[in-house]
Amino acid sequence: MCTECGCGSKGHLEIIEVEEKILAANDERARHNRETLDGHGICGINLMSSPGAGKTTLLERTIELLDSKFELGVIEGDPETDRDAERIRARGVPVHQITTGQACHLDAAMLHEAMHQLPLGTIDLLFVENVGNLVCPAAFELGTHLNVVLLSITEGDDKPAKYPTVFRKADLLLTKTDLLPYTDFNIEKAIREARVLNPQMKIFQLSAKTGEGMKEWIGNLHHKISKNYF
Amino acid sequence: MCTECGCGSKGHLEIIEVEEKILAANDERARHNRETLDGHGICGINLMSSPGAGKTTLLERTIELLDSKFELGVIEGDPETDRDAERIRARGVPVHQITTGQACHLDAAMLHEAMHQLPLGTIDLLFVENVGNLVCPAAFELGTHLNVVLLSITEGDDKPAKYPTVFRKADLLLTKTDLLPYTDFNIEKAIREARVLNPQMKIFQLSAKTGEGMKEWIGNLHHKISKNYF
Repeated sequence: MCTECGCGSKGHLEIIEVEEKILAANDERARHNRETLDGHGICGINLMSSPGAGKTTLLERTIELLDSKFELGVIEGDPETDRDAERIRARGVPVHQITTGQACHLDAAMLHEAMHQLPLGTIDLLFVENVGNLVCPAAFELGTHLNVVLLSITEGDDKPAKYPTVFRKADLLLTKTDLLPYTDFNIEKAIREARVLNPQMKIFQLSAKTGEGMKEWIGNLHHKISKNYF
Repeated sequence: MCTECGCGSKGHLEIIEVEEKILAANDERARHNRETLDGHGICGINLMSSPGAGKTTLLERTIELLDSKFELGVIEGDPETDRDAERIRARGVPVHQITTGQACHLDAAMLHEAMHQLPLGTIDLLFVENVGNLVCPAAFELGTHLNVVLLSITEGDDKPAKYPTVFRKADLLLTKTDLLPYTDFNIEKAIREARVLNPQMKIFQLSAKTGEGMKEWIGNLHHKISKNYF
């Protein structure tokens, strides 16, 4: 009850209880997804970022550069349109688009349904491009093996400190570099603040547009898939 | 029940029911906030964008340019840190920071509590800088009079089509222009697709960094406050 003006606001306790219930049910579904991925020998990667940070462009370039002996699959998440899925499909990779409508993140149930639309028996590496959002995707386990966060430098070097949860959960942080000359982004500060949140996280500086750093990113993927390090 | 593998996934019906209940309670609190704002003759503006699109920089420049006869107040929303509030406070404007933690948006209850931390009796224009997120802030009414969306052009010209709800709700769309020369953003396409979603929305192209378009934005604010057009 609000004591300021007696309006009857009950605060957030009710919402928190409901969220905990939703997250617990989601965790159970995520465990089931992980079993499905492991059963098929698929490495699952949850790719997260703000809207328009360049996730799909990174995937397009990754498809081009990845050794052709590895089979890819992609699941795209967006509130509306299947434009990202069209871009992936044009490159001959099996893809399924989830349109989430009002939902600001993918959850394990959505991923479960989407996975069954793909030829799981032939896939080695499944990229899940989450909805563009730096907050909620981090709260919903999907059952994938790796969390990768892509940070577009135009968003500002304060993003790790202001949106810590997604950086705490990341196994890999990719910072884009192509617009560095035109912004006042301090990449050392961003990396330093991200490392405080998550000392174990690997960090690659790359640009899908210029090709900078892509060799290291692709090498890391090859290593993970071929050694089953996931 | 999932028919693909019999795993017991119940889908999203339960979540949708809970969300509807939460939104209905929020709407009631938003009406109370509106009454509070109207009672004090305050124009309330809900400023939304992706993370790092430049909301705080726009507010800093707006504070500088707005006629000093109008008194401003600012409420800042971020998952963590009070860095944005510090930036506003340094300019002598009353400000209150909401740190939302895991929550990806402000809601009417949070705004209600924050408003009571400000000297409402002296404020003419209250800016509410929402959490950086293009999805959920659009679903939660705050009780403010105007919804303003700021679109950073590095996010890509497909954002209105892919994140339609926030553009449908906007009274005003501000598109930033300073990085236009360095991206392949098609501003005509973005505006055309935004207009399909929301023909009534006003659109200003501006840059808080170069000053382009700021005169029109400030003029619009003066008009709204002095004529009580809110």
